Amino acid sequence: MKTAGYAKRHPKQKRIVFHPIGFVRSPEKEPQLRDWDDVVSEIRIHPRWLAGLKGIEDFSHLIVLFHLSRSVGVRVQVHPRGRADLPLVGLFATRSPHRPNPIAMTICRLLKRRGTKLTVKGLDAVDGTPVIDIKPYIPDNDLVKRARVAKWIYRLR
Amino acid sequence: MKTAGYAKRHPKQKRIVFHPIGFVRSPEKEPQLRDWDDVVSEIRIHPRWLAGLKGIEDFSHLIVLFHLSRSVGVRVQVHPRGRADLPLVGLFATRSPHRPNPIAMTICRLLKRRGTKLTVKGLDAVDGTPVIDIKPYIPDNDLVKRARVAKWIYRLR
Repeated sequence: MKTAGYAKRHPKQKRIVFHPIGFVRSPEKEPQLRDWDDVVSEIRIHPRWLAGLKGIEDFSHLIVLFHLSRSVGVRVQVHPRGRADLPLVGLFATRSPHRPNPIAMTICRLLKRRGTKLTVKGLDAVDGTPVIDIKPYIPDNDLVKRARVAKWIYRLR
Repeated sequence: MKTAGYAKRHPKQKRIVFHPIGFVRSPEKEPQLRDWDDVVSEIRIHPRWLAGLKGIEDFSHLIVLFHLSRSVGVRVQVHPRGRADLPLVGLFATRSPHRPNPIAMTICRLLKRRGTKLTVKGLDAVDGTPVIDIKPYIPDNDLVKRARVAKWIYRLR
């Protein structure tokens, strides 16, 4: 590994420190592989950010970035969803939770806002998950109509 | 603000510490409001994560999470893109860089991989930006066909 050369060219490998802006309240208490599409949960934003939510209800979908706080350890290569019949691939080619920086990104439907409480549908985060950021889903930025994916993706369906 | 009640119910407001997995090399050196669609840049992943990239080239599009390391200070409400003719909205209803946790999410096209170097198109990150995570864009998870957006979005086009 050419680590020395990389370090020389990129000397400022600083730590990045974030603080949760809120937490998830969900009926789901344990991580599990399942279909989360119909799970309704609540994101409770810290009251100090109330004014930052103004107008968020004008968007039907939110991009939620959250901390996979239960995820321990990195697995550099994985069989997607732990299925031995699928190929061994690099973690960055998957959505595995066992990442160098355990952060997840999920797009979910915003059903309702009441003050700092956002009711959402389809958020695959367990109860108590720290939320790092919320952004509006904007098709002009975020919609990719024709994307090519690895063949193993088709075998997940 | 009912901060005390919130703190009581959510006592574990811990810090979240991340470390860059790589850096952006871009012809764009300064942040600016522009169309980044045609900008070609390179993500240089740390050599320790080389094996974690296996198979990533089977995906045409990547979700890139990066640290807005030049962004200083939070603006709780903003006029989108600084345009006074657009309404004042909460930061979480926008993609403003001035966020409590300055993290950006951009979906870009993967043109080529050579070892730990990913050539991408459309990444709106300036030269030197620390990269936090990379995920494959998977339409089954990430494609929203019919999304409602705020009216001011149409005035950005």
